[in-house]
Amino acid sequence: MGHYKINLKDVFFILKEQLDYGSLATLERYLGLNEKAFDMLVNEAASFAKGVVDPLQETGERSGITFENNKVSVPEEYRKAFRQYGEKGWIAVDLDEEYGGQAFPQLLTIVKNDFMYGACQAFNMAPGLTRGSAHLIESFAKTPLKKRFVPKMLEGIWAGTMCLTEPQAGSNLADITATAVRDGDHFRIKGEKIFISWGDHDMTENIIHLVLARIAGAPSGVKGISLFIVPKNNVDQNGMIEGPNDVFCSGIEEKMGIHASPTCSLVFGARDACVGYLCGEENKGLAHMFQMMNSARINTGVAGLGVASTAYQNALSYCRERVQGRDVARRKDGNVPIIDHPDVRRMLLWMKGMVDGMRSMVYSGMFWADMAKALPEGDDKKHYQDLTEFMTPIIKSCCSDMAFRVCETAVQCYGGYGFIREYPQEQYLRDVKILSLYEGTNGIQSMDLMGRKMTIEGGAPFEALKKEIQRFCDEKKDHAGLGDTIRAFEGVAGRLCDAAVFFREKMKTDPLQWASYTFPMLNAFSDTILVWRLLDMAVIAYENAQKPEKKYDFYRGKVMQATYLSDITLPHILVTIETCLRHNREIVDMPDAAF
Amino acid sequence: MGHYKINLKDVFFILKEQLDYGSLATLERYLGLNEKAFDMLVNEAASFAKGVVDPLQETGERSGITFENNKVSVPEEYRKAFRQYGEKGWIAVDLDEEYGGQAFPQLLTIVKNDFMYGACQAFNMAPGLTRGSAHLIESFAKTPLKKRFVPKMLEGIWAGTMCLTEPQAGSNLADITATAVRDGDHFRIKGEKIFISWGDHDMTENIIHLVLARIAGAPSGVKGISLFIVPKNNVDQNGMIEGPNDVFCSGIEEKMGIHASPTCSLVFGARDACVGYLCGEENKGLAHMFQMMNSARINTGVAGLGVASTAYQNALSYCRERVQGRDVARRKDGNVPIIDHPDVRRMLLWMKGMVDGMRSMVYSGMFWADMAKALPEGDDKKHYQDLTEFMTPIIKSCCSDMAFRVCETAVQCYGGYGFIREYPQEQYLRDVKILSLYEGTNGIQSMDLMGRKMTIEGGAPFEALKKEIQRFCDEKKDHAGLGDTIRAFEGVAGRLCDAAVFFREKMKTDPLQWASYTFPMLNAFSDTILVWRLLDMAVIAYENAQKPEKKYDFYRGKVMQATYLSDITLPHILVTIETCLRHNREIVDMPDAAF
Repeated sequence: MGHYKINLKDVFFILKEQLDYGSLATLERYLGLNEKAFDMLVNEAASFAKGVVDPLQETGERSGITFENNKVSVPEEYRKAFRQYGEKGWIAVDLDEEYGGQAFPQLLTIVKNDFMYGACQAFNMAPGLTRGSAHLIESFAKTPLKKRFVPKMLEGIWAGTMCLTEPQAGSNLADITATAVRDGDHFRIKGEKIFISWGDHDMTENIIHLVLARIAGAPSGVKGISLFIVPKNNVDQNGMIEGPNDVFCSGIEEKMGIHASPTCSLVFGARDACVGYLCGEENKGLAHMFQMMNSARINTGVAGLGVASTAYQNALSYCRERVQGRDVARRKDGNVPIIDHPDVRRMLLWMKGMVDGMRSMVYSGMFWADMAKALPEGDDKKHYQDLTEFMTPIIKSCCSDMAFRVCETAVQCYGGYGFIREYPQEQYLRDVKILSLYEGTNGIQSMDLMGRKMTIEGGAPFEALKKEIQRFCDEKKDHAGLGDTIRAFEGVAGRLCDAAVFFREKMKTDPLQWASYTFPMLNAFSDTILVWRLLDMAVIAYENAQKPEKKYDFYRGKVMQATYLSDITLPHILVTIETCLRHNREIVDMPDAAF
Repeated sequence: MGHYKINLKDVFFILKEQLDYGSLATLERYLGLNEKAFDMLVNEAASFAKGVVDPLQETGERSGITFENNKVSVPEEYRKAFRQYGEKGWIAVDLDEEYGGQAFPQLLTIVKNDFMYGACQAFNMAPGLTRGSAHLIESFAKTPLKKRFVPKMLEGIWAGTMCLTEPQAGSNLADITATAVRDGDHFRIKGEKIFISWGDHDMTENIIHLVLARIAGAPSGVKGISLFIVPKNNVDQNGMIEGPNDVFCSGIEEKMGIHASPTCSLVFGARDACVGYLCGEENKGLAHMFQMMNSARINTGVAGLGVASTAYQNALSYCRERVQGRDVARRKDGNVPIIDHPDVRRMLLWMKGMVDGMRSMVYSGMFWADMAKALPEGDDKKHYQDLTEFMTPIIKSCCSDMAFRVCETAVQCYGGYGFIREYPQEQYLRDVKILSLYEGTNGIQSMDLMGRKMTIEGGAPFEALKKEIQRFCDEKKDHAGLGDTIRAFEGVAGRLCDAAVFFREKMKTDPLQWASYTFPMLNAFSDTILVWRLLDMAVIAYENAQKPEKKYDFYRGKVMQATYLSDITLPHILVTIETCLRHNREIVDMPDAAF
């Protein structure tokens, strides 16, 4: 018996009523598709998540993975599920048809991942990494390499990984020391990589590693890093497996959560015989890898969204069923379901709003990313590209930190039962903790946002967000029912943007003080965008919410979550901004000995 | 190799410079003692925590506990440590000498527990429960029962538990159904209890359960509950073990953390032969049990403080040692220790302030509790009794929720390593999660604070806090260096008290809206008291902090943590209060179907 639950009404409200995702099918790239095809894919993804992926959550946590003789083994159910996942086309929802993709908008990949992560986070990392590494090969490698590797990865016959981190180079990729030496048509790779998710397993007959390493003689720092395709088993030109490459797994990590996802240390070239193929241009490895890293960052946020959604849905069911304590206003006799207790409703309403806000943030972000990808060259395309740049660190960090908070609150709804393995909540809380840490800690995301994203191309990504928010405010601020709240939102967003510009100057003149406040500023952006998305949904729901019939309760929920969360969030955002602007510099000046 | 670390300088600053704890020895109750004796006990407790308790953290997590044939077994090291703990007098630091206590102020028990929980939370629950149940017997049972049970418990030869929760009665003790039937000089007990911490084990030769049950014919609800002493093994009048009582462990819970602490389901009287002795008055069981519950609530906060302190100290060491990334202001060449990165310092400064604030909150609270206990009858005694009443739910909830936040931040300092079992942080995060759930969820604490503690005796507990804060403001608000901040604090505290009075009225007129906002109001009280304690420490440290020599850095840290945390916290408290006062009632009005 699984625990996966999803409210598809919430999902389709965003996709259809908020975003009109069917309109993507009018873009040239997606002309062969239509809204009905999108709907069908969404419904099928939900069924697959419930039917195939959900049971893996319990299996993975109970049986776990084994590591023996430098080999990782996963439960049999995982092997079957991964193969089905590939066969059904779920690995390559948005990739080009040439190598086996389904050529849907990226938004559909994200919706699918929302469900799949929500059903089993640990498992869904594997197809995510496989898509990402296949896409790198498809985008940058020479055609024979594409043909050799990509189709089998997209079918789920082989899996893929990304190998960046080394023991001495965690967040700082400039310090990578793995090496590559040319040897005829390929390279010999040597080095150790750690924290490689799904770095080894017996779920597929082969694993294709995408590895960052330095070609002998390359410049130091980030400009001397190249990207290589390194199969676990060597493959001939026809895609037939020849025998093991010189790669082995030297250990796996014991972790707080996602126990079914093997986190491996990999040794490349211990016998000086590790075959790797250059993927893309020499010394451009990091730039290439950024394609996968950006996608991985967004999917980290999606994982947070998906698990938070499941945690909320489970808490909601539990609070409807669990009978305990008297009604505080004595509206009913005897004990009542705990959803009747206002403090429990407070937690539920907050979680609902956060999950809906995150979902709208993520889906909107991917809708914009699809516009960026599919629109013809021009100002609009550039606008959406810029917007996507700005949204990436926000989606990654907001949805990871907020997911942890939602899962914490979901545990709280269960009382002591929240701490017990018999119920699903404690695992969600443990699983999602990784999301604020990997793919660049959230602190690093804040420096990316307040540094790079505020400054590249004269701050174009920042300007794109500002423009998009302004457009919303201009259109909606005279709304009959929500105008007050939207004007309050406009004021806060304006203040935030002014503060962001202030910090852009600060970065040059006083980088230490700047770096002391990038994280709260990131949070201010996250909260502002969450509120914006909630208000945008509320405006759409408003008319229906006025109708008295019970069937419109759904729309009332959208309006009420927005007014509640706007009112309790906006003034805090304003305070956060003001505290970021204070002159005192305790963080910088605190003597080391005083900690 | 253990991980326990404590900065005794911080501890003694609060005990001596802030509280002058030596002054407790001038109270008649403690006349035989003196500050030197207190200091010695504190130092010895720290040594014992480091030397004896710290290794149990790793052992307990690795070997864990076993459950076979309805018996729980703990690692050998636990048996030895518990015995030593008793022999050294740590179980009964503050209990009367008559039955083996050391008769120190309660504050010393709390300082001891700060260290012991910080070294191994799961283990230290056992002596905590033993002290609590022994103290119940000592306070309420007839003398022969005291003699029979208490001394062996305080020596660590026997352990104790509290048995309240039943499957159908979690937070709501009114629904307890366990029964007691008189049978000569004792009762026959029957019923099932769940979630009994340390409910069974082989750490001691006997376990003395303190059990809530209803005597046949007693009134329904809370007024028909009595308290019983139920030994695991029957004991004759000389304290010799006769043989097993009719109590067995029917199962243990698999949990998120505190794995070394067995959480048991206990079945009493399956063969109708479970011997129990009345402890205190018939039908007064809940009132008696409140002594232990209040102490358990405070110690829940202390556990949060202790583990948060250890998590912070470990993060601090890690950030000093871990070299990664370039200095953002290029003050140094090459990679630097991550403590040099402002965003990491931000996390450290925040954790330091929270730990120091919690410690001062808890120690101050216990200092006041000691005054309440030891002062002669009169207004002062009553003032401190009232203050203690008000502080209890705040200490419980603030230090549990804040500990979780500190441990989360400590994980974040480690990046990906924070998620790995090789490092201690992920366990602290898992362990402390229980603290917001047991001993009354934090939601329940908020209703206790904003309900009972605002209304009993005309709101005397609330008035006591208000008076104590006003005294501080009156004395310090013209402080040359910190006056501005203290005046800002005074404004916020005043607004908070006004809002609390508003809600006291609301409770009568609109209990649903009242109950929607008890939790954020509790948080506003918690944050206000944290800031108050930090400012109080800063005033004391201020003069020394002005001296330029490096050796005064310690005092600069006290001032800087206070100004930083006051500035970033006070305006948020004000916003929280205002949002609590809003008229909208989404929490109450949200249709069930809209969630």
